[in-house]
Amino acid sequence: MTSDTQALKMPPVASTANVRLEAALRHKLDHKTKPLGSLGKLEQLALQLGLIQQRTTIELLQPQVVVFAADHGLTDEGVSAYPQAVTVQMVLNMLQGGAAVNVLARQHGFGMTVVDAGVASAIPDAPALPSHAPTLLLRKIGFGTRNMARGPAMTGHQTLAALSAGMDVVSHLAGNVVAFGEMGIGNTSSASLLLARLCGVPLDDAVGRGTGLNDEQLDHKLRVLFEVTRKHRDAKTPLAALTAMGGFEIAMMAGAMVQAASERRVILVDGFIAGAAALLARGLRSHCADYMVFTHRSAEVGHKLMLIHLQARPLLDLEMRLGEGSGALVAWPLVQSAALLLNEMASFESAGVSQASATQPAHDLPASA
Amino acid sequence: MTSDTQALKMPPVASTANVRLEAALRHKLDHKTKPLGSLGKLEQLALQLGLIQQRTTIELLQPQVVVFAADHGLTDEGVSAYPQAVTVQMVLNMLQGGAAVNVLARQHGFGMTVVDAGVASAIPDAPALPSHAPTLLLRKIGFGTRNMARGPAMTGHQTLAALSAGMDVVSHLAGNVVAFGEMGIGNTSSASLLLARLCGVPLDDAVGRGTGLNDEQLDHKLRVLFEVTRKHRDAKTPLAALTAMGGFEIAMMAGAMVQAASERRVILVDGFIAGAAALLARGLRSHCADYMVFTHRSAEVGHKLMLIHLQARPLLDLEMRLGEGSGALVAWPLVQSAALLLNEMASFESAGVSQASATQPAHDLPASA
Repeated sequence: MTSDTQALKMPPVASTANVRLEAALRHKLDHKTKPLGSLGKLEQLALQLGLIQQRTTIELLQPQVVVFAADHGLTDEGVSAYPQAVTVQMVLNMLQGGAAVNVLARQHGFGMTVVDAGVASAIPDAPALPSHAPTLLLRKIGFGTRNMARGPAMTGHQTLAALSAGMDVVSHLAGNVVAFGEMGIGNTSSASLLLARLCGVPLDDAVGRGTGLNDEQLDHKLRVLFEVTRKHRDAKTPLAALTAMGGFEIAMMAGAMVQAASERRVILVDGFIAGAAALLARGLRSHCADYMVFTHRSAEVGHKLMLIHLQARPLLDLEMRLGEGSGALVAWPLVQSAALLLNEMASFESAGVSQASATQPAHDLPASA
Repeated sequence: MTSDTQALKMPPVASTANVRLEAALRHKLDHKTKPLGSLGKLEQLALQLGLIQQRTTIELLQPQVVVFAADHGLTDEGVSAYPQAVTVQMVLNMLQGGAAVNVLARQHGFGMTVVDAGVASAIPDAPALPSHAPTLLLRKIGFGTRNMARGPAMTGHQTLAALSAGMDVVSHLAGNVVAFGEMGIGNTSSASLLLARLCGVPLDDAVGRGTGLNDEQLDHKLRVLFEVTRKHRDAKTPLAALTAMGGFEIAMMAGAMVQAASERRVILVDGFIAGAAALLARGLRSHCADYMVFTHRSAEVGHKLMLIHLQARPLLDLEMRLGEGSGALVAWPLVQSAALLLNEMASFESAGVSQASATQPAHDLPASA
């Protein structure tokens, strides 16, 4: 894979580490009119945002959500509760504004782009689209991946093309915040396989019910995926694992994340599938992680372990398992809150509020305190 | 207390239970273009909102946040990290728009009211207020409660006056959603004592660091509160416990919650102090709980047990412990999302999307599925 990696032109991603700025951000947070640390995770988030933007006042501009859609040849093996046709049907639903991600994008004023990364059919012309329809980008790498139970899901060339397309998509986006979502019947299988391979998680712990398998169907999925890991046991690097067991939407999202990080955008990482792309992006450019806000813990069983491997403490745990970027968008107002609280809250000095005696050394306290 | 309860004119609160409406709401949710149940807690929330409003399309109108501020005589015993003067200072900070709750109310378009329920000093005229300053209501029951280590925090008459004032405040509010917050140095002590008394929780498990006590200060607080519970061991009903160990802001908030429930408003319950008011409201009118959305789990140690006693599964767990209604406002967009997803998402039928094979009986499935 070394030659492949070299063939891929991928931008550098800088670390956000900045000791002086971090101290300035902590000082600003600690002098707001509130008990020290009392905004909890929102303070850690404000700190991360400040480091991403390298400033002590945050500006979040024109947030975007990009949904990558693709199909998986593995669905031939009966690993999903839904037929493959649902992928293109849901793309049309998104173009017409009816999916969960549309509702949430409208609620929060996100620009929305749907990318055909490799849906198994052509996207038919949709009937009269609403005025605020998402942008559709046709970046199809293939008509679905091949059935990875029989051979690699994609060729090395397709992997690189997908990563490049993802980079290109992001490079043309407005704003400085981007949420990534996906739609692809069968893609929890890919994400589980990547988690197992890249993090050394036992496959049993990485595989879940996806869109809603019953016990019998879950057993079957697990048997199929065991065969897939055996078949591709030599695919060990991120790129090799992606080629053998990935999906076009996952590859494209991974490239998109690298590009977003290279441009210092805030990356809102959705659930289990987006998490697999995050693992890959981090594998390709380690500092990508600095730019990622992990928005929620999915109900998909492997996500908990995936988040541990990503060293991520997600903002929400709402037992969601929908994909599309829905979790990222539900969490977005919390990111805004973190920024606004850092930007706008008064300080003890400016508001004339007394500070805690607890911040004094203990020997200065009155005996009764 | 029976005669006191009778002296209090309190409106009835209807149960939201409605089997036919619940079935209609579940049907609507289950036919949205998403895997069954995949919106997790947002679906349960949409169901609750529908039952509160007794309809299958939710309307959330002119949301309001009301912050009740009051002081506690118990602070004489050194139970808080901050001096009592901070209560009035923070009221002024709120009137000038600099507190966390202001930032969040602006972010989410909430109308904001600050109520002087019993601050220990008069609220001084604030210097030139910003154009969107919150409304200040003067409903002072007293200049802080009395020191409950020496006697009851309030008189029975004050308790009833505070409950009535809370009802009155809500009855004049616009909209159909109300978040309640508080400001009162020393009020985690009251909330801990009410939790211990009303729910039978051991005091050690109910008492925490409040705004940030160190170990030594926490030990001291715990010793003081043990004495208080011994002194008021006969105050067993909600009203008796409130009178002996409550606070004006907590009493007023409890009355406000009962009124809000009686008017079928959505009640956004903030953290530990608001939770104590919720316990009281539920004790006074049991169906109040139907109208309450528990927005977050506070980092204050007793809140976890309090939520269990309230049978509440909060939306957020961000390790916040600020009060003011800040947690309720941070969670608000999730409530909106739940409503919008119920209202606006397409159904499988309307979008022409195939449903899951998992919804078929298992014997209809192909052998490989």
